[in-house]
Amino acid sequence: MRPYALATLRPQVHMRLETDPYLSRYADRVTGLSASEIRALFSVAERPEIVSFAGGMPDLSVMDLEAVAELTGHIIRDQGTVALQYGGGQGRAALREALVGVMAHAGVPATADELLVTVGGQQALELIAKCFINPGDIVIAEGPTYVGAVGAMSSHQADIRHVAMDGDGMRMDLLEELLAQLAREGRSAKYVYTIPNHQNPGGVSLSEARRRRLAELAVEHDLLVIEDDAYGLLGFDGENATSLRTLIPERVIYLGTMSKTFAPGVRTGWIAAPTPVREKLVLLREAADLCPSNLTQLMIERWLTTQPWQDQVKRYRALYQHKAELMLEALASEMPVEVDWTRPRGGFFVWLTVPRGIDTSGLLAKAIGRRVAYVPGRGFYDDGSGGDQLRLCFSFPPVDRIREGVSRLAELLHDELGLLRAVYGDGAPELAGRRDELGRA
Amino acid sequence: MRPYALATLRPQVHMRLETDPYLSRYADRVTGLSASEIRALFSVAERPEIVSFAGGMPDLSVMDLEAVAELTGHIIRDQGTVALQYGGGQGRAALREALVGVMAHAGVPATADELLVTVGGQQALELIAKCFINPGDIVIAEGPTYVGAVGAMSSHQADIRHVAMDGDGMRMDLLEELLAQLAREGRSAKYVYTIPNHQNPGGVSLSEARRRRLAELAVEHDLLVIEDDAYGLLGFDGENATSLRTLIPERVIYLGTMSKTFAPGVRTGWIAAPTPVREKLVLLREAADLCPSNLTQLMIERWLTTQPWQDQVKRYRALYQHKAELMLEALASEMPVEVDWTRPRGGFFVWLTVPRGIDTSGLLAKAIGRRVAYVPGRGFYDDGSGGDQLRLCFSFPPVDRIREGVSRLAELLHDELGLLRAVYGDGAPELAGRRDELGRA
Repeated sequence: MRPYALATLRPQVHMRLETDPYLSRYADRVTGLSASEIRALFSVAERPEIVSFAGGMPDLSVMDLEAVAELTGHIIRDQGTVALQYGGGQGRAALREALVGVMAHAGVPATADELLVTVGGQQALELIAKCFINPGDIVIAEGPTYVGAVGAMSSHQADIRHVAMDGDGMRMDLLEELLAQLAREGRSAKYVYTIPNHQNPGGVSLSEARRRRLAELAVEHDLLVIEDDAYGLLGFDGENATSLRTLIPERVIYLGTMSKTFAPGVRTGWIAAPTPVREKLVLLREAADLCPSNLTQLMIERWLTTQPWQDQVKRYRALYQHKAELMLEALASEMPVEVDWTRPRGGFFVWLTVPRGIDTSGLLAKAIGRRVAYVPGRGFYDDGSGGDQLRLCFSFPPVDRIREGVSRLAELLHDELGLLRAVYGDGAPELAGRRDELGRA
Repeated sequence: MRPYALATLRPQVHMRLETDPYLSRYADRVTGLSASEIRALFSVAERPEIVSFAGGMPDLSVMDLEAVAELTGHIIRDQGTVALQYGGGQGRAALREALVGVMAHAGVPATADELLVTVGGQQALELIAKCFINPGDIVIAEGPTYVGAVGAMSSHQADIRHVAMDGDGMRMDLLEELLAQLAREGRSAKYVYTIPNHQNPGGVSLSEARRRRLAELAVEHDLLVIEDDAYGLLGFDGENATSLRTLIPERVIYLGTMSKTFAPGVRTGWIAAPTPVREKLVLLREAADLCPSNLTQLMIERWLTTQPWQDQVKRYRALYQHKAELMLEALASEMPVEVDWTRPRGGFFVWLTVPRGIDTSGLLAKAIGRRVAYVPGRGFYDDGSGGDQLRLCFSFPPVDRIREGVSRLAELLHDELGLLRAVYGDGAPELAGRRDELGRA
């Protein structure tokens, strides 16, 4: 499940270092890499009695499986020797044409030649990190940011600097401050990684004014920007925000994915990049896995060219809006006043901030004991922050269990706050939220 | 197409370095990476009038496409919400169980827990390189070796040392010499990469005696061995050789793939590794692309558990044996006496050595002009060797065009040798083959 696996990919102390006889052989980049205890907890969280807000997954119950089965059968019968054969590293031209249509629907210009088909959005993040990052290179990302991006960049030994968000997305004043500081140090960032639409995990979007400011800063500081648009078509109001690629195309590497608007099981994402960069990325992709699956490429080609795919996006959007409303209502009525959260207008996630005295990593075992699961906040930062934050996914859990799950978590937090009050007394800093960042938007 | 894309992934001088405005931003590992002119030639080689021995592809004309279409339709209808959802990074347990069965059929012991499902064999090579190679680290590989392995290792800045082969595979005397030399320099190799069965591109297999000697040397020099078994089940006689994993399991990382025994379009390979290594590789795979496709995993699961998959392997084996015989007969009757080649007993490839005066990279354009294509030898080495060698694939071209293609290539080589004789005179070193390495076996 997407976030389970990646929640703790960041290097950390491995309890069993001494017992790994292969330790001296590993490359520097992986010596500290280790699975954590949280992984074990998440396998427990898959039990049916637990309401899991952890996995960042689409709800496939509204997918037209019959249509997918039928078109897939046709592909194998009619084009089987192509579908099951090797393909080119850049991905099929016909699929890239169709993806240009998806981008156009999101208001983002591109040509098929600029695109590289990837194994989901994650491979795009890995290829870009591999293409640009030398050990110790600085990259800038929202704080919190997508855990898989942290994983990909960390695996290339990036020095990740986080810029906090508020309800309007990444704070440009803080970005500017960071860029000025780097300039004073004679350093620069390899790129800025941003998820401007319905951010994972923040659940907020970059405002129009800040998009324009980010574009200005990119020009001023000669920056590349990675624009991860996983959730752009999943705004509840169906409107498109201005993409960074529209503003500064030669400075933007744009990422799209079919995982949210179609389904993740076909593992299909894409990169739109300036031609010289796209050429390098194709070579790296060939070293990584040769080529994407022709079969799943043909499935998406047919889906986009013969099926009413925009209706499917609308079905997802309506379902997620309903689920988000259920979650936000439940949070408003159940949570202690000391807890803050974001108000998403699209995407998959709500981001919660609890009082500092509570450690969300440590709390997870208790939460699972009370039959509710979330992802602790630390995995979404590379600097140890996030211990008082957590991510809730509303897209996947069944409609009729969202309230129940929120109640269980709220009850646990009430109990924890009661303990804190007993220890520290009312009004102690341990009981205060952090309203200056991603608190109440 | 598999070898087209990778033939020239090795870093080389880029003619357009000055024109790439992103040049200063790339990581060191990719600055020199560039597509070559050979790539453009290969796109021409796909024209129907050309007999292409270039692509290292299976012949899917003998696949039971109806069975694949039917089982895939069932999967999407019955398990669609699983097939199209995210999965775990290690791959489905049921598929890993089934792959253990495939390994057992090849005489290689394993448990499902030791396996990691990858995106073809190529991802396995990339993950292993990323796991072990620091820039400048030494790895040892056969010379020539699989071009995609050169690509993956080079992209992590490995120092690849080749060990020549003869008809019995990698020469252990030369390996021993290299290991002794490294020991004298106080250096060691991160691993030895070998394709012991029906090597790509050499077309030869490691003898039983050498397998045992390689195992001894691995223990003596404390080496890891990467055993790439892409072609193990495609021996024409249907017999299994002793796998290195059987001899020294704790020192071997074993790679398998469904690309040759089923089809490449499902992009499914696997790694069998000692547990601590497998754990690291799972983390790296999650950073690389999160998880393999549940859909294609379920397809292979059903294929292996409900279909007579061993009959399919037999069909491939018989077809390739027939094609190999046609190619070897044509070579014997058409080629100049100065040309040497290997006699494969399985796999996909014949490896040709031509007199030193002929450069196979330069010759390719002329060959395509004469409506025949091959892969020049240089891509299979990381040290500039192979200019007088080339790879012919017999598995993919149609039965009725193999002789025709060999005749065209033989005619070209006769003409080139005629030119050389005219320039240098009979008996000149430029006209002599290299019978000490992969010449006539």
